[in-house]
Amino acid sequence: MPSSYQTNMRLKFPILAISLEILIIILFGVFVTYKDISGTGSHGNSTDNRFHALYPMFQDVHVMIFIGFGFLMTFLKRYGFSSVGFNMLLAALGLQWGILMQGLWHLHNGKIEVDVYKMINADFSTATVLISFGAVLGKTSPVQLLIMTILEITIFAMNEHLVVEILEATDTGASMTIHAFGAYFGLAVTRVLYRPGLKNGHENEGSVYHSDLFAMIGTVFLWMFWPSFNSAIAAEGQDQLIAVINTYFSLSACVLTAFAISSLVQEKGKFDMVHIQNATLAGGVAVGTCADMHIGPYGAMLIGFVAGIISTFGFKFLTPILASKLGIQDTCGVHNLHGMPGVLGGMAGIVAAAITGRSFQMQSAALASSVGIAIIGGAITGFIMKLPIWGQPPDQNCFDDSIYWEVPEEGEEEENHLAHGEHSTNKIEA
Amino acid sequence: MPSSYQTNMRLKFPILAISLEILIIILFGVFVTYKDISGTGSHGNSTDNRFHALYPMFQDVHVMIFIGFGFLMTFLKRYGFSSVGFNMLLAALGLQWGILMQGLWHLHNGKIEVDVYKMINADFSTATVLISFGAVLGKTSPVQLLIMTILEITIFAMNEHLVVEILEATDTGASMTIHAFGAYFGLAVTRVLYRPGLKNGHENEGSVYHSDLFAMIGTVFLWMFWPSFNSAIAAEGQDQLIAVINTYFSLSACVLTAFAISSLVQEKGKFDMVHIQNATLAGGVAVGTCADMHIGPYGAMLIGFVAGIISTFGFKFLTPILASKLGIQDTCGVHNLHGMPGVLGGMAGIVAAAITGRSFQMQSAALASSVGIAIIGGAITGFIMKLPIWGQPPDQNCFDDSIYWEVPEEGEEEENHLAHGEHSTNKIEA
Amino acid sequence: MPSSYQTNMRLKFPILAISLEILIIILFGVFVTYKDISGTGSHGNSTDNRFHALYPMFQDVHVMIFIGFGFLMTFLKRYGFSSVGFNMLLAALGLQWGILMQGLWHLHNGKIEVDVYKMINADFSTATVLISFGAVLGKTSPVQLLIMTILEITIFAMNEHLVVEILEATDTGASMTIHAFGAYFGLAVTRVLYRPGLKNGHENEGSVYHSDLFAMIGTVFLWMFWPSFNSAIAAEGQDQLIAVINTYFSLSACVLTAFAISSLVQEKGKFDMVHIQNATLAGGVAVGTCADMHIGPYGAMLIGFVAGIISTFGFKFLTPILASKLGIQDTCGVHNLHGMPGVLGGMAGIVAAAITGRSFQMQSAALASSVGIAIIGGAITGFIMKLPIWGQPPDQNCFDDSIYWEVPEEGEEEENHLAHGEHSTNKIEA
Repeated sequence: MPSSYQTNMRLKFPILAISLEILIIILFGVFVTYKDISGTGSHGNSTDNRFHALYPMFQDVHVMIFIGFGFLMTFLKRYGFSSVGFNMLLAALGLQWGILMQGLWHLHNGKIEVDVYKMINADFSTATVLISFGAVLGKTSPVQLLIMTILEITIFAMNEHLVVEILEATDTGASMTIHAFGAYFGLAVTRVLYRPGLKNGHENEGSVYHSDLFAMIGTVFLWMFWPSFNSAIAAEGQDQLIAVINTYFSLSACVLTAFAISSLVQEKGKFDMVHIQNATLAGGVAVGTCADMHIGPYGAMLIGFVAGIISTFGFKFLTPILASKLGIQDTCGVHNLHGMPGVLGGMAGIVAAAITGRSFQMQSAALASSVGIAIIGGAITGFIMKLPIWGQPPDQNCFDDSIYWEVPEEGEEEENHLAHGEHSTNKIEA
Repeated sequence: MPSSYQTNMRLKFPILAISLEILIIILFGVFVTYKDISGTGSHGNSTDNRFHALYPMFQDVHVMIFIGFGFLMTFLKRYGFSSVGFNMLLAALGLQWGILMQGLWHLHNGKIEVDVYKMINADFSTATVLISFGAVLGKTSPVQLLIMTILEITIFAMNEHLVVEILEATDTGASMTIHAFGAYFGLAVTRVLYRPGLKNGHENEGSVYHSDLFAMIGTVFLWMFWPSFNSAIAAEGQDQLIAVINTYFSLSACVLTAFAISSLVQEKGKFDMVHIQNATLAGGVAVGTCADMHIGPYGAMLIGFVAGIISTFGFKFLTPILASKLGIQDTCGVHNLHGMPGVLGGMAGIVAAAITGRSFQMQSAALASSVGIAIIGGAITGFIMKLPIWGQPPDQNCFDDSIYWEVPEEGEEEENHLAHGEHSTNKIEA
Repeated sequence: MPSSYQTNMRLKFPILAISLEILIIILFGVFVTYKDISGTGSHGNSTDNRFHALYPMFQDVHVMIFIGFGFLMTFLKRYGFSSVGFNMLLAALGLQWGILMQGLWHLHNGKIEVDVYKMINADFSTATVLISFGAVLGKTSPVQLLIMTILEITIFAMNEHLVVEILEATDTGASMTIHAFGAYFGLAVTRVLYRPGLKNGHENEGSVYHSDLFAMIGTVFLWMFWPSFNSAIAAEGQDQLIAVINTYFSLSACVLTAFAISSLVQEKGKFDMVHIQNATLAGGVAVGTCADMHIGPYGAMLIGFVAGIISTFGFKFLTPILASKLGIQDTCGVHNLHGMPGVLGGMAGIVAAAITGRSFQMQSAALASSVGIAIIGGAITGFIMKLPIWGQPPDQNCFDDSIYWEVPEEGEEEENHLAHGEHSTNKIEA
């Protein structure tokens, strides 16, 4: 192993993780307090009731972040520990950092007052990191990922402030500010970290039967709870109902087209698990921006219908081209699940704004800003992550848990067994 | 492979799936709109509050449909992709079709006004299909399953209208209209599709260790959220609480008897995963019809107690007889989980109605109608599905994902390896 | 097999399980009824609204009990059926018994009036048993476990009554009454059941790659829903919000330190799945007692920070010492996840009470009572469980599902295959 690959995390990781946590605790001590919810809010509801109305939606979003994203990425045969484990690590760090980065734009008496609404937004901010994580999955060290988490959420919070507060654009389900942003940020990072050695693939960059089933746990939880994701921060009541309904039907239509195209593009008409795990979700991404608009259930279904088609075609035809022609090695295909559907969602928002007489220029600026800042921010972040001191894995150890995790011996023994048959018995009995 | 088995889905499936989706979008454009929830409803609650009260229950039901049913059927060693994947496909199609079929009986100003209540009912309507799917699991093509979904939900909506609106029978937790209906519909289909070639079993019709654990994910989520299933459409407040409590205790009692009988019927007193995965849920089915009645917690427990016994005995003794004597090949044993406990629930409803002075004739008619229409509808649907143009798999490819899915090579290699030992090394290294 | 190991459950288990269930049904018939929620409660909410406010939190707790604890224990390579299956069995029995044992201290007109609040508490009471189950995992028969369930919940309900009603101590998230109690009870049981034959480990007492992923399902669901666990029985409104926020941040800080210490204590800086599966949760345990106190988000994070460190060090250094020096064989390391963090939580509660001018003596008495009664109760229970008539497994069959479960043949064949290579082909084809 060349000296540039010092993948032993024993000092680097604990020092960085604990330093970050201490820094965050100090900042929380200075800035963060509980929101007082004893007063009365909108809709004649006490804010107390509002807590009970939002809390189940928060938990749905929470499940999407920790189970959904975490297990969706367990499809790789030997990278499940990292997928679900690092996902938990990044999200736990990210939500704390997100409270600070988002909250600093909205101080009350110098304080960030936390309530369930702010917790939902903190979870949201981690989603961008987890999307980008999908692009670089298997090719980065946990130290690199901590750095990406801090930088990406900082930049995300700036772009979100620009889109929502300055441009006053609509993006209820965050097609632009989370999905497109997270995807293009991650694609920029993975482009900067381009590995020529992986050009011809890697033996571990694939699934096994049960890893595909673990991934479906992630898929299905994301799919089910997406209506909560797209409605949680909509205006309470009617707007939330509309966001729930639009997302429910967009996702349902998307499942049909994802299955249809998956079968269509395979010679023998067989379905591909990669498509089903991912493209069935594109309808949730694409309906995000106009989730709470009166586009009609059929309008939402049209968006999902198109998203499922685009996403599946993307996995089949575009991802290989991005890798071979542009050097963009997108492990999970986040461009197909979050990138293109996110842009589609932004464009649907532009059209919907134009039709309903709202400012479509601001929606356009929001989309351009989200994609542009993501690419620039991702490139800068990528160059920082590329410094040869963060312990990134050498090519041959990519997509392999065992470089950063203690992995049960069975794995290796089974491998030995497959390779050396007759010797395995002793080892197992030993 | 004989020419009658044209299992290549490349044209059939995409054409059917996309045509159905386009048809549905058009019908949605004509008929479906958002419900206006800005007014005030019962119990002094704004309907806005009602949205927040029902939405968490909707999500629980949603989890039962997509995770619960999907993973419950992953117990087969090589049919997990189809179980959870087709489950998602059928449910996504079914809930759209369910909105239309159920809504056409209740138009307001020519429109179906969607709210969370209607979404719960749409999810419910798919449950019938997923129960029937369990009976034919492993033996049908995705095209056949799409056809079954459309036909079964159409017939289900008619029967439900008959039971609830015309007979005015009580069936809060849908023991009759969903569980018994779905089971006997599926049994009729599988009877018509009888395969003599599977009379002596099939090597893939069994579980492996980890597939049984995946199935337990389905079992436990169904078990936990069943109180939501049985109470979601009960009258808000006290009735819902009673339905929650009755289901909670019925299921708990059922677990004890399912474990007890599972041990009792095995020579060495060992538990059987098939029983634990399924019979522990029978208490939720059986308490459905009278879920919101004042039967007392102990009454609910008695129902669950009996359901667990009947269901486990059914798996042990009845399923083999149905297969060998009547030609009913019931892959998941839906007769034991949904059929008999559903009828038990219907009968408990008759008794409870008689005791409380309600019309037990109408309850009896509802039960007879649900079973009768299911059998007739299932038989007709079975004959349509039997047409040799829908790509059903030949016997030897039953219970095998690889006929309709791209399956990771490892699976096949492992098989090769097991069969040919010494040759496998090269293939894996290749 | 010596005659003292009569592990055939065929009569013992069904008779005990069914007798207990019948006894419980009779007691329910006498004592248990539905709560009437048609009146009006605190906060100007109808109790009807209170049902809808609490029900989602109940379901979160329910998921923690049945999925969380159940799958957390599936990390063992050949004990997944027992982990998730017996977890379900014990919880289903325990919640019925818990309703009775807790309710008998609070009768209204001679009745236990069940509502969602009481269901949450019933689920809570089972948590103590499931924690203790973790200590003896793999070494007890289902009959022994039923006995432990009945005895432990009875003793738990007495201690809880003492702590909450007589000492009037605060323990909202139950660091003392559930976590410390369940841990020290289980440790006392496993000490009494000490097996010298397991002193040098057991070949099945370890994980395989996918069993560690199944366990992460449990971990993540516990982690996500812990805010509901710690807030469910807090005073509605502001106090619940504070408990949610404190738990959310304590757990997040804990993840960072658990990962950091896991890396620090391993020679090559690699993470250990045992730590990630367990120590990431210690922050939820430790913040329990003062969950609803105004300790500030940073205060909660400090507690989580320390809990993650203590717990990980415990797994690395303390568990081996407890086993070798004190004869305490703690399969899941519940001392590290529930014991020490529970005591830490109790001590944090003492400090917080002292600072805020509440009675720290009563908090101290509550902690001492919880640990003391647990150890005495656990020891007595252990001696009862040790009677040689309950069918405990011999040492060589510990940590192995196949002694109490029918296990798919593949498992054994794969074993045969590994051991005898060339013979396996015939068996598989047979």
